[in-house]
Amino acid sequence: MRDFGADEMYAREFIFGTIKQVYQKYGFGPLETPAIENLTVLTGKYGEEGDKLLFKVLNSGPYLDEIDSESLSSKDYKKVTPAITEKGLRYDLTVPLARYVAMNAAQLAFPFKRYQIDRVWRADRPQKGRYREFYQCDGDVIGSYSMMYDAECILIFDEVLDKLGLPDFTIKINNRKILSGLAEAWGFSDKFGQFAIAIDKWDKIGENGVVQELGSRGFTETQIHQVQHLFRLTGDIENKLSILDNWFQNTETGKKGIAELRELLSYLKTVAPKKAILEMDLKLARGLDYYTSTIFEVILNEVQIGSIASGGRYDDLTAGFGLTNMPGVGISFGAERIYDVLKQMNLIPHANQNKVRALILNDGGEKIKPGFALLAWLRANDISAEMYPSTEKPAKQYSYAEKKGIAYTISMDSIEYEGTVTVKNILSGEKQNANWANLLQLLQKGE
Amino acid sequence: MRDFGADEMYAREFIFGTIKQVYQKYGFGPLETPAIENLTVLTGKYGEEGDKLLFKVLNSGPYLDEIDSESLSSKDYKKVTPAITEKGLRYDLTVPLARYVAMNAAQLAFPFKRYQIDRVWRADRPQKGRYREFYQCDGDVIGSYSMMYDAECILIFDEVLDKLGLPDFTIKINNRKILSGLAEAWGFSDKFGQFAIAIDKWDKIGENGVVQELGSRGFTETQIHQVQHLFRLTGDIENKLSILDNWFQNTETGKKGIAELRELLSYLKTVAPKKAILEMDLKLARGLDYYTSTIFEVILNEVQIGSIASGGRYDDLTAGFGLTNMPGVGISFGAERIYDVLKQMNLIPHANQNKVRALILNDGGEKIKPGFALLAWLRANDISAEMYPSTEKPAKQYSYAEKKGIAYTISMDSIEYEGTVTVKNILSGEKQNANWANLLQLLQKGE
Repeated sequence: MRDFGADEMYAREFIFGTIKQVYQKYGFGPLETPAIENLTVLTGKYGEEGDKLLFKVLNSGPYLDEIDSESLSSKDYKKVTPAITEKGLRYDLTVPLARYVAMNAAQLAFPFKRYQIDRVWRADRPQKGRYREFYQCDGDVIGSYSMMYDAECILIFDEVLDKLGLPDFTIKINNRKILSGLAEAWGFSDKFGQFAIAIDKWDKIGENGVVQELGSRGFTETQIHQVQHLFRLTGDIENKLSILDNWFQNTETGKKGIAELRELLSYLKTVAPKKAILEMDLKLARGLDYYTSTIFEVILNEVQIGSIASGGRYDDLTAGFGLTNMPGVGISFGAERIYDVLKQMNLIPHANQNKVRALILNDGGEKIKPGFALLAWLRANDISAEMYPSTEKPAKQYSYAEKKGIAYTISMDSIEYEGTVTVKNILSGEKQNANWANLLQLLQKGE
Repeated sequence: MRDFGADEMYAREFIFGTIKQVYQKYGFGPLETPAIENLTVLTGKYGEEGDKLLFKVLNSGPYLDEIDSESLSSKDYKKVTPAITEKGLRYDLTVPLARYVAMNAAQLAFPFKRYQIDRVWRADRPQKGRYREFYQCDGDVIGSYSMMYDAECILIFDEVLDKLGLPDFTIKINNRKILSGLAEAWGFSDKFGQFAIAIDKWDKIGENGVVQELGSRGFTETQIHQVQHLFRLTGDIENKLSILDNWFQNTETGKKGIAELRELLSYLKTVAPKKAILEMDLKLARGLDYYTSTIFEVILNEVQIGSIASGGRYDDLTAGFGLTNMPGVGISFGAERIYDVLKQMNLIPHANQNKVRALILNDGGEKIKPGFALLAWLRANDISAEMYPSTEKPAKQYSYAEKKGIAYTISMDSIEYEGTVTVKNILSGEKQNANWANLLQLLQKGE
């Protein structure tokens, strides 16, 4: 678990603020769900591995009383756990969203568009770039099959990452129905899951790896050969789609996938992404089982850091909470990776506007009062400023200003209200005299 | 635990944003500590009652293996708990701050000024106005004895509550050393704690209640009579201080308390609060043991809701983490109560700027493309807008706009780029024709 000091907070606020602003512009409203959910909400939603990674909260009071002594004496923690814990920390923001929508369906305006930028927790072994507490930055539209929203997701990726100043990036798209269509066309629908898992590993294990994996999972040579076609497809999206048209003459699912993707692309022909390269990647499968249509993944072209944003379309997010027919599409930004890249590439703006502009040096005696009055006057004019609290020697007072990144120090030359002061620019060392009005003008200029 | 939908989130962002902005202007920087802390950090810091209210996180894996079977079979949960849980959710923001400062003392600029507006968790029985998950809005200055900071705390209370538009409020101040001085002067220093607890209840149980409580705790009649003086003191702060001068001729602690308070007031003579009534309340003691000097409490004069902000000065916040000589002063805003009052009094501003300004109605067919192009153009001009995703009947599309508080609907009259549209004001029902440029002007006006 990490602490974030002021500089890191300003950088993170820049990232979160940018994402939030774009979501709002696209009509997404904020939602905040609690950190703690009932385990009945969380359990069974993330697979067996996920369930193990849930942080569980111990019940209050004499929580052992109700357990049968046998489970206790056998130290069978799997039997004991359900008896001593009912709540857990949320693992992601998607399942709480599904719970919220199911609980509040009667009041919500559908399609329901919400964003949530918030912490989630996973009891994972901490390692480089992976944390037990981290932020997710999710946006979802629930209650519509319209591919307009999938197109908007691409435009949101594009606008956010462009505004953050990230270098060249590619938005990869695919459609789960196209993958199902391939499995159908090539005669291994029964092994669809294994096919999807294998091709999704191409980035990590390469073509040979995928071929080996398929072989060991009982795919025939002909089937493997067919799958290898996916790695040879080149050209633009239209080109790939017409090859698929050919393959999909006898699969309705495949045809549906192509139709969905073409509908999505028709919106992007009207409004194209400003900066992103858009690429159809037939190897893209994405692990999460609930995706049923469009899938997205965004990567940087010049930095090897994995995906920095992703998402996809689902048919029935809220079914687990008793509300059916709620299709939707959702995306998420990987704030931790984005922060790492921006920092590494020195792209985080100097958030001067958040920083203290001036420190009034404390000479003690009769200068304290006018100093404090000047301080209040600067603040009344919306300048972030401080006065040093005691009459330490000047070097110590300067060092406070330097350490805190304060731009100017001010010495009170006269004790009159609106009298003269000496202003020193900490970076350049340059000094000048000013009355209060000139001082304010100087401090209002953001450098 | 609660979910917060968009309207509530906008209201809360108004409150949090105002507090944050003022803290920053006064030179406080943001800090974020993790939700989960080691129980060694949390336990023993909040008294026995507090320890019971800590949410504890169950260890991962076979957590029962290391426990002796005897504790297990006796179902002695107090013995078992330390063996199966090492982490807990933070109970407040102050103890994590102390841990952070102790851990990072070498790098920080002192006096260290930080704010944190964040969630805390308590396993309390939920009741009206009390939640298991709630926000604290803390600001602290650590590393200085200067009463300038205590004066700044008062100015921060004043500015924040004024900016939030709250009605008349009073900032009550007292000093723990003055209370110690009274106990000394009246000969019951040994019973200081009981004295402080009793007078602090005056608001709830009245003078008779306090007298009874003191009697039952073994205070003599003379002592009780002396304590009753506190309830009779009237007049302004200077008047009260001169009466105390008289009483405190033989107590150094009492004299120190008065000197501290006078120093604090000297700053407020230079810069007075704009809106708050400042009152010295000798009955104000505040429960938390770590306060050693100034104490604050802010109440509304016309709404009975208890304190909406509070704080105080401490000598040694970080001593529990091995760092001594770290005096400081901290305050906190009761965001939940402030929200309740603002809502009750209808004082929450209509956060129009956060809302979607326009919904482009979807007539389908060839109007989709120009509609989507107009949508992108509005967003490129920083207008939050949406297009309805499908060709539902107009009533349903309007109802979406109404439910979501969208100000205008737009019908595409022509399919040309920058052609004419019909704009309808949802509230007034008024319609007008406009080209894209006129439309933008209209939407940019915030009503």
